[in-house]
Amino acid sequence: MATAHYKTPSPYKIERPSAPEEDYLYTRFANDVTLKTENGGNNKIIGMALFGAGRAGTFHLRSLVQNPRVNLLYVVEDLKSKWEDIKKYWHIENTKLLSSKDQEQVFKDPRVDAVIVASPTFTHEAIVTGALLHGKDVFCEKPIAENNTNTENCFRIAREKNQHLFCAFNKRFDPSYRHVKERVRAGEVGHVQMIKISSKSSPLASLEYLKTSGGIFHDSIVHDIDVMCWVLGEYPSRVAACAQAHIPEIAAIGDHDTAALMFTFPSGTMGILDWSRYSCYGYDQRLEVFGPRGIIMCENERPLSGIKSQTKGLEGPICVPNYYTFSSRYCTAYANEMEHFLDVLQGKAEMATRGPEAMAVIRIATACEESARTGYFVDMEWGPEFDERGS
Amino acid sequence: MATAHYKTPSPYKIERPSAPEEDYLYTRFANDVTLKTENGGNNKIIGMALFGAGRAGTFHLRSLVQNPRVNLLYVVEDLKSKWEDIKKYWHIENTKLLSSKDQEQVFKDPRVDAVIVASPTFTHEAIVTGALLHGKDVFCEKPIAENNTNTENCFRIAREKNQHLFCAFNKRFDPSYRHVKERVRAGEVGHVQMIKISSKSSPLASLEYLKTSGGIFHDSIVHDIDVMCWVLGEYPSRVAACAQAHIPEIAAIGDHDTAALMFTFPSGTMGILDWSRYSCYGYDQRLEVFGPRGIIMCENERPLSGIKSQTKGLEGPICVPNYYTFSSRYCTAYANEMEHFLDVLQGKAEMATRGPEAMAVIRIATACEESARTGYFVDMEWGPEFDERGS
Amino acid sequence: MATAHYKTPSPYKIERPSAPEEDYLYTRFANDVTLKTENGGNNKIIGMALFGAGRAGTFHLRSLVQNPRVNLLYVVEDLKSKWEDIKKYWHIENTKLLSSKDQEQVFKDPRVDAVIVASPTFTHEAIVTGALLHGKDVFCEKPIAENNTNTENCFRIAREKNQHLFCAFNKRFDPSYRHVKERVRAGEVGHVQMIKISSKSSPLASLEYLKTSGGIFHDSIVHDIDVMCWVLGEYPSRVAACAQAHIPEIAAIGDHDTAALMFTFPSGTMGILDWSRYSCYGYDQRLEVFGPRGIIMCENERPLSGIKSQTKGLEGPICVPNYYTFSSRYCTAYANEMEHFLDVLQGKAEMATRGPEAMAVIRIATACEESARTGYFVDMEWGPEFDERGS
Amino acid sequence: MATAHYKTPSPYKIERPSAPEEDYLYTRFANDVTLKTENGGNNKIIGMALFGAGRAGTFHLRSLVQNPRVNLLYVVEDLKSKWEDIKKYWHIENTKLLSSKDQEQVFKDPRVDAVIVASPTFTHEAIVTGALLHGKDVFCEKPIAENNTNTENCFRIAREKNQHLFCAFNKRFDPSYRHVKERVRAGEVGHVQMIKISSKSSPLASLEYLKTSGGIFHDSIVHDIDVMCWVLGEYPSRVAACAQAHIPEIAAIGDHDTAALMFTFPSGTMGILDWSRYSCYGYDQRLEVFGPRGIIMCENERPLSGIKSQTKGLEGPICVPNYYTFSSRYCTAYANEMEHFLDVLQGKAEMATRGPEAMAVIRIATACEESARTGYFVDMEWGPEFDERGS
Repeated sequence: MATAHYKTPSPYKIERPSAPEEDYLYTRFANDVTLKTENGGNNKIIGMALFGAGRAGTFHLRSLVQNPRVNLLYVVEDLKSKWEDIKKYWHIENTKLLSSKDQEQVFKDPRVDAVIVASPTFTHEAIVTGALLHGKDVFCEKPIAENNTNTENCFRIAREKNQHLFCAFNKRFDPSYRHVKERVRAGEVGHVQMIKISSKSSPLASLEYLKTSGGIFHDSIVHDIDVMCWVLGEYPSRVAACAQAHIPEIAAIGDHDTAALMFTFPSGTMGILDWSRYSCYGYDQRLEVFGPRGIIMCENERPLSGIKSQTKGLEGPICVPNYYTFSSRYCTAYANEMEHFLDVLQGKAEMATRGPEAMAVIRIATACEESARTGYFVDMEWGPEFDERGS
Repeated sequence: MATAHYKTPSPYKIERPSAPEEDYLYTRFANDVTLKTENGGNNKIIGMALFGAGRAGTFHLRSLVQNPRVNLLYVVEDLKSKWEDIKKYWHIENTKLLSSKDQEQVFKDPRVDAVIVASPTFTHEAIVTGALLHGKDVFCEKPIAENNTNTENCFRIAREKNQHLFCAFNKRFDPSYRHVKERVRAGEVGHVQMIKISSKSSPLASLEYLKTSGGIFHDSIVHDIDVMCWVLGEYPSRVAACAQAHIPEIAAIGDHDTAALMFTFPSGTMGILDWSRYSCYGYDQRLEVFGPRGIIMCENERPLSGIKSQTKGLEGPICVPNYYTFSSRYCTAYANEMEHFLDVLQGKAEMATRGPEAMAVIRIATACEESARTGYFVDMEWGPEFDERGS
Repeated sequence: MATAHYKTPSPYKIERPSAPEEDYLYTRFANDVTLKTENGGNNKIIGMALFGAGRAGTFHLRSLVQNPRVNLLYVVEDLKSKWEDIKKYWHIENTKLLSSKDQEQVFKDPRVDAVIVASPTFTHEAIVTGALLHGKDVFCEKPIAENNTNTENCFRIAREKNQHLFCAFNKRFDPSYRHVKERVRAGEVGHVQMIKISSKSSPLASLEYLKTSGGIFHDSIVHDIDVMCWVLGEYPSRVAACAQAHIPEIAAIGDHDTAALMFTFPSGTMGILDWSRYSCYGYDQRLEVFGPRGIIMCENERPLSGIKSQTKGLEGPICVPNYYTFSSRYCTAYANEMEHFLDVLQGKAEMATRGPEAMAVIRIATACEESARTGYFVDMEWGPEFDERGS
Repeated sequence: MATAHYKTPSPYKIERPSAPEEDYLYTRFANDVTLKTENGGNNKIIGMALFGAGRAGTFHLRSLVQNPRVNLLYVVEDLKSKWEDIKKYWHIENTKLLSSKDQEQVFKDPRVDAVIVASPTFTHEAIVTGALLHGKDVFCEKPIAENNTNTENCFRIAREKNQHLFCAFNKRFDPSYRHVKERVRAGEVGHVQMIKISSKSSPLASLEYLKTSGGIFHDSIVHDIDVMCWVLGEYPSRVAACAQAHIPEIAAIGDHDTAALMFTFPSGTMGILDWSRYSCYGYDQRLEVFGPRGIIMCENERPLSGIKSQTKGLEGPICVPNYYTFSSRYCTAYANEMEHFLDVLQGKAEMATRGPEAMAVIRIATACEESARTGYFVDMEWGPEFDERGS
């Protein structure tokens, strides 16, 4: 009876511990049970239009059609053959389907408060500026325009019109990445010595896509450059990059499939980033932050994360596969991102990604591309316009 | 260059592998993109009434209010003070709130196709029989009635009226538990030698709740008895159980907080189950199945499952906490369960939990309770009415 | 520079933390560097004889031949053909090889202080009593004799002659199992509610071995019964067991290959144990202890425990296999066990496994066997002779 | 009985699978049981002298004193006060203790076949050349001399005298790192796209040590540069490095505590390496290799690797700490390294680390140091003398 004398008070006699913050599903449930609504802001139903009902648009459709805060007025989609199925699949009988040639109708409809831009890249700029100039707020998938000058111009218009122009860096809304960022910003590892991000994509993108993607740095790595700067709260003073094309078709179009990047930040923090266009074992997304007080890592999440099996003879335990691709891995992030945008529109939150931040990461991606091309370290300077940051 | 000669064909030259089935979020996304709908059945919008808007009812509210297949006509809830908040929080302006004294109105409304019963236990039987006799299908939280005879009577009425009476064993709809079950049923471990389930609850239930819960066997363990038989596809021929009350308040009401159970099945499979009313480290839910070809385990899932940190000096890596409780751990299961019920109502699926199965697990829980009380193994026999099983 | 203000004092300005106790290899290294020897006891070189150079004897050979505390005088082994190879392989030119028919020579040699018994089971009792009666200390692999009465007799002789008779329960010397035990005994989980042990063997033992093994309860499960009681510091007041034979050859010899056991202890603790004669995925050894303050688990250790790979397409990460069998999994335990015995002989430690403890686990195994045979719970009582325990 | 029809043949009727190679402890045990000795070579007992009985020397003492292949004739150690304790602790009564001023005695003793150099760095070159010129083989801790020219000279002498000069890169002998290397070299991931090594030291080295260490690149990172090239079988054509000193005392002596390195190899493989002088959470050693066929990782190993606990309220599972430092993490590597050297001396193995390899990693470390100092990428060329590699 060696342990019987370890008396513990009855759990009924001690204060019940609160649920851990990490259990964000419980937090939602607790709010549901207590019918707790956000303070501040308004509860106006937001009139919306979605441009593009392809892969990216589909995420947003799922977020919008079942959303009590949203009145989805238009879906602009040029594939007319899909219109009927879209209406039926999503049960959006009251939403109007339009071709892009009729998009002026959206801009002129005063019921439309905001537009979501998920159409092909080359159409972004015109929709963004059209919407802004008609007084709509804009949520736009990256890139906002096809070059830095035009992008900067879009942000200038938004500033002048005092409209929101939200550039979608969805990884910021992933619960795990955000968790890391919050702990780092609370000083849990101290002054960061090293931040490392490793991303590998899956499945392999089509060559058609890659040809117009803008290259590995602007198309892909830019997302993790954003994550890195967002976690640290600073921009690099020096970058170095190497890149290779192992897949001949990718070499043939002058792009790369694998890249390594090294960053030095003004505070002395260093960053390492590696990227691959294709991981045969599924989507691979990892982040770690190290400092004098310790390390915080986000390793790969996977569906059915508790499953382990050993059913192939003398083999070690195997887990289920990684998420196949971004749409499942960042499923929650996409939903959270839209909720954040709605919070912004209802006056309940500050916008997380400001214009200068979007411009900054584009500049960094450009510098990295230059370093990989020239074989030199590239030094960077940051004017005061880059001082203010969202979260 | 020792590895350069390991040439691999370009991934563009080989067939793209399909996404793994385990990535159920990707499957949903792929359906969204292709606008793929279930074959068969109908697409009738289902008129529904929800009885009870407490904790269990809240799950179902979340599933129902944003559901394009559902027209939520009534919420029956006796706390009138919550009515306004419920309408506002869930944006259900067109749903009628009622007191239970007016519940006849629900039964008589021909627009109501089905009712969801999530009200206090003592009210279940009357609502179930009332609804069935008026031709409504019923989804009922366990228990269906306060004793075995009355429960059996409810199932008899359902059979006679040819209505669905769905007894909610939500764990069956958890993607991980279902994944284990499917692999076991596909023979991946061979003829099962041992199945083990370990469940510990969190937070500690209130004494008020426990007093009317029916005891640890009927209130809690019954869920895992169902899981065990559902995975195996058979009912035990012998059971043995021990139980203890370590928490004095639980001892005082004649209940137990900890139990161990041992099952022998007709095929020779053995089962072990352990249960605790309270785990101070959060909700603990594990399952493993062992046979001649190997083992499949479902260990604890947790939110932010990729996070690991070491920020407390010379301590090992720590993960984020377990889910706090059933509402977050089985969040997806609750949603899937309601979708299943809607599939049944639209003629797209067979009902997963048949009446005899619900009766069987109640009988087993009763036998276990007897074994714990008497200190004897209890042998069980199963008539032909228990042969037919759902999935 | 959001993290730059998290100043930490220079690690040179703060006290260096001590190495964690769990790093037992570091502890050994630190002792090596500081040339730190145990206090107390003596440093007499111990004259030894080993009976049996088969599988079990081989462990002990490795521990003994390179051991500066030991003078290995004899190896008694009836396979004369191996003598030359043994001498050469182990470089033990000064050790005398003998046949068992000449074992009296060992007993009569006054240079022999202790004997290690690792010969076939049926020879144990004679060697044990012979050695004890000649004033030698004895280290004996389980079982000490072929029935309970004779075993008890051996312990009686040891007591009367004031010699050590050490019954080898090697799992007690595994660093991980010992770590769990020490934390449990320090009250880290409070009064234990549930202890669970799961053991599956690998590879499948030969039928020749099984025929004379004494059956699954006495041959195998007895080791984990010992672990359970050793962790808890108490013996069960009630046991229940079920057993099955899935492998026809094992059924044919009247033994079982799979067993489930349930224990109730006087303090209210419950225990669950499951055992299998054969796991196709390697040796499976797990232990967990749960109480009001939490849980401590020992999951499977494996060689190369840091390795994970994903090299088979869209499959999840896989670890290296489990240890193949006891000889690798408990390699350190076997070495530690011998060091413990040497510590006892040099007066530096109390013997960890006393006679009543060995007798107790035999009684419990007998009761479990009875429960499995009869289908009844078996109650047990413990006289005062079982009160004193080692560690 | 849904799984009863999954008949499997009796395991007695199928061929027993062989033990997995990864279980190297089992392999050793199987050899012990079958008394299997290496083919080839000789079994001459090797006369040895150890220079230095400090921290590094202590490892080798443990490997040598209990080694049946070795006759340890001398230990050269200037701290005479330790002589008596060394003899007593290690039971090496027949070994002669000497001061370094008498080291000629070692060189002139024809019984000495080989010397182990583990004395302070500034003494290495004289011992190495003295031993080589007297016809002894040499095992030398890094560095072999205090600059590249002198090191090269030592290797030249060894070549001319046809003696072994073994430069100890112990990580190559770690079972896990070796396992990764073998799988990579077998093409399991295909042509490597990215290799990543992350090393952080623990505890913080003393400033006295650091002052004469040669700086982070030559003292520490050189080991992982060796690992990287050894896994890949090629040397980099371009290197880039950044380094920082966050700890003021380290800045004050002109060294760095944190470094990031980026390598491009002739075949197109890229490498990333990060290093820190101090990890507050213990020794951190990780390696991963990625290619078109997948990824192989070696994450941190830790003692008691199966232990997980949750005993601090609502916290996630925690593992035991990392190994504290190199001496425990690479304990097996140190032992294996000495066994390898003995195999070389007995003609049973080719020497794993040839002179050009040691020279190559020194050149690479020098180039990295230059890159960190100048802020330029450094290109490297490799003459034919670097073509031949060990394993």
